[in-house]
Amino acid sequence: MKFAATLALAAAMFALATPASAQFAKPEDAVKYRQSALFVMAQHFGRIGAMANGRAPYDAKAAVDNAEVVAEMAKLPWAGFTANTDGLSQKAKADIWKEQAKFKEHNEKLVGDTGRLLAAAKTNNLDNLKTAFSQTAATCKACHDNFRNQ
Amino acid sequence: MKFAATLALAAAMFALATPASAQFAKPEDAVKYRQSALFVMAQHFGRIGAMANGRAPYDAKAAVDNAEVVAEMAKLPWAGFTANTDGLSQKAKADIWKEQAKFKEHNEKLVGDTGRLLAAAKTNNLDNLKTAFSQTAATCKACHDNFRNQ
Repeated sequence: MKFAATLALAAAMFALATPASAQFAKPEDAVKYRQSALFVMAQHFGRIGAMANGRAPYDAKAAVDNAEVVAEMAKLPWAGFTANTDGLSQKAKADIWKEQAKFKEHNEKLVGDTGRLLAAAKTNNLDNLKTAFSQTAATCKACHDNFRNQ
Repeated sequence: MKFAATLALAAAMFALATPASAQFAKPEDAVKYRQSALFVMAQHFGRIGAMANGRAPYDAKAAVDNAEVVAEMAKLPWAGFTANTDGLSQKAKADIWKEQAKFKEHNEKLVGDTGRLLAAAKTNNLDNLKTAFSQTAATCKACHDNFRNQ
């Protein structure tokens, strides 16, 4: 029993001690991963934006389909901002690694906002979609303003 | 009534007539989209492979988390293989557009396999994960052999 508990504790500590960078074969993969996830998210988010801004006809099902992808993708990119990628991308400001708590706060805000965007899409009401889209877009912008070189 | 029916028919025909390429601002975006989705999927699939092949310790929760992303990502890339991207990427064979039914069959097989991979991960049984991983990897390879330049 004690041995098992010790093993479990060791495993938990290993998990905590394993840096996120261990998930990627090389730092360049982490950069490519986060850029890929953000690009896929942006494509689907843009399609919702086109409906919200009247550039495309409102299609309730397409809005939900796109919002589902956006909400899933919003969870992914952050794992790619590993410490060993500082300086590898021109776009990522060093502040990401200097102000990690603030960066994480932005990441989590986006996850929350995109969850609400999906809920709004599911109401099949364009006004709800517009409101949630604006809120999410503002969150994207706030993070870009703080942490991305223009 | 007749007018409404005509309108509905016109809308349906418009939906059918709108090419998938209309979802992307330019053909290069479609290429980048599919490559991004495949890269994100491959990263998560590789982590399951590491467990299946004994290169990483088996972690049942991580297997499920990764399989969830794989199953979601497996649905996405195909929309990026729009006809107007034929010739834009060195890796994509022209056969993709010449044998569309066969290509689609491969795509759908992957969606099915990754769904089963997720179900296998959820059994929390490494042997089930190994079997489903091998099956999915074989499906990746079959499509690459047919449609991707090496």
